[in-house]
Amino acid sequence: MSGTKCTRLNGALVKQVLDSVDSVLFDCDGVIWRGDQSIPGAPQVINLLKEHGKKVFFVTNNSSKTRKMYADKMTSLGFGVREEEVFGTAYCCAMYLKTVCKLEGKVYLLGSNAMEQELEAVGIQQTGVGPDHVFGKQNDWASVPLDPEVKAVVVGFDEHFSYMKLNRAMQYLIQRDCLFVGTNRDTRLPLEGGKAVPGTGCLLQAVETAAQRQAQTVGKPNHFMFDCVASQFGVNPDRCLMVGDRLDTDILLGSNCGLKTLLTLTGVSTVAEAEAHWESGCSERKGMVPDYYVESIADLLPALQG
Amino acid sequence: MSGTKCTRLNGALVKQVLDSVDSVLFDCDGVIWRGDQSIPGAPQVINLLKEHGKKVFFVTNNSSKTRKMYADKMTSLGFGVREEEVFGTAYCCAMYLKTVCKLEGKVYLLGSNAMEQELEAVGIQQTGVGPDHVFGKQNDWASVPLDPEVKAVVVGFDEHFSYMKLNRAMQYLIQRDCLFVGTNRDTRLPLEGGKAVPGTGCLLQAVETAAQRQAQTVGKPNHFMFDCVASQFGVNPDRCLMVGDRLDTDILLGSNCGLKTLLTLTGVSTVAEAEAHWESGCSERKGMVPDYYVESIADLLPALQG
Repeated sequence: MSGTKCTRLNGALVKQVLDSVDSVLFDCDGVIWRGDQSIPGAPQVINLLKEHGKKVFFVTNNSSKTRKMYADKMTSLGFGVREEEVFGTAYCCAMYLKTVCKLEGKVYLLGSNAMEQELEAVGIQQTGVGPDHVFGKQNDWASVPLDPEVKAVVVGFDEHFSYMKLNRAMQYLIQRDCLFVGTNRDTRLPLEGGKAVPGTGCLLQAVETAAQRQAQTVGKPNHFMFDCVASQFGVNPDRCLMVGDRLDTDILLGSNCGLKTLLTLTGVSTVAEAEAHWESGCSERKGMVPDYYVESIADLLPALQG
Repeated sequence: MSGTKCTRLNGALVKQVLDSVDSVLFDCDGVIWRGDQSIPGAPQVINLLKEHGKKVFFVTNNSSKTRKMYADKMTSLGFGVREEEVFGTAYCCAMYLKTVCKLEGKVYLLGSNAMEQELEAVGIQQTGVGPDHVFGKQNDWASVPLDPEVKAVVVGFDEHFSYMKLNRAMQYLIQRDCLFVGTNRDTRLPLEGGKAVPGTGCLLQAVETAAQRQAQTVGKPNHFMFDCVASQFGVNPDRCLMVGDRLDTDILLGSNCGLKTLLTLTGVSTVAEAEAHWESGCSERKGMVPDYYVESIADLLPALQG
């Protein structure tokens, strides 16, 4: 590839790049772990970065866990991580509603218990999670009772997503002053063995189509997630590295926020895809080309141990 | 409006237009009835057209009724209609799978009992309709048992739509040779009093997003629906009038198939919307401008009674 984009990060360059930053943001799945197993060497990398005085943060689009659940999982896998260093979309969505929207009212929530808990933690009430089965006929659906205190519809990952929930969200969103927020647009949740299940993006598309409105999303590649970290910890984008396995979320977030970007090949995206973005000549796609790539974040180990 | 598009159809022009056609295609909801009430004068219009020797057909994107259910409803409202004259997407979808796809295998169906019956009537088996609740965890969803005989995923209106159904559809569609067919893309089902509920288009969007594939749809504005009528009854497009209340489905179908088009204002679309399409200068949007419009199809009565 021409220019200085998408350079293999190894040898002396590793130390040079690490010396140029004070903070490192990591995506989680496909970067520091896959499913329930840590990427070999990842805990040492994280722990050594901290020992070298770097601020380390975790930014994940997955809305099915609270910060605490993530910190507990990380601890059990050998990562020395505090809850405050984890930014999942369940938490960020609650922060967005609280600090940006200054929401006064309840949330109609398509989401998980984790989202319920993160909303509660910032003092936002919601209408309850879980199944909502269909009853009656079309006219009953159209006149389903609405909670007059609801001022926002929030869509995250919801395994109980149903026609009735879609309908209820639409009836709220017909009210033009009802806010509409989504956690993220990931279309699939990748699992081990090349398998996957439908992601929040599918549910959000259905609600957007019904509502004939676009949701504001807080997850990567939207800059809110970085803003959230930066405002709490005083991160300077010029001296920050974003590490991720997806070009369309992680790397694009980094580009959108002026961070240095590093693609790791232990997850979804490939160098060939990055090259195709570069060669497209399309400026939007160029934002998905990382500055550097590694086979695994374990490639950072020698420089940190040296 | 400039030119001869979107002309008010009244006076001597009514007879002139009716004399120029042998067949008339009507959309149903918003055109000949609204909900459970016929549009005043509509039964007489239909019955008189037939008495004048016109062939009359009904083309509806609604997939929740069989041809027989439609014919029964029409009869009870005073329309002299035979089952063979009704083309709903439940029926057309079955015909599409049978005659165009020449499907040999089962259908994984997101749809209604009516769709099940129309598939059965052409000898196509499907996996069953009704609720499909979530169980277990992500890995269970990704390895949900698939029926090896399923060779097509079909999405119609399904009030039991759920995350599990979305997931099952996606797992089938990951198999590249699995066909993917939708009844229609209507985003909302309009009801009386300006109310609405989510339409099949929302469900189809969710499945398309998960599958990362586009479905082939059989409903308006796709020409298959007209092909279906034309092949069975020998309709000449030059001598056929399409009557509907929606610019983006009914009128566009007419334009796509080279039919004369008539907008009736008893349903969804307005003359102002048609004018905006015309003035856009965009060729795709011009297909949504009707040749003529009436306040109600009852405006055709004087010419038929005279």
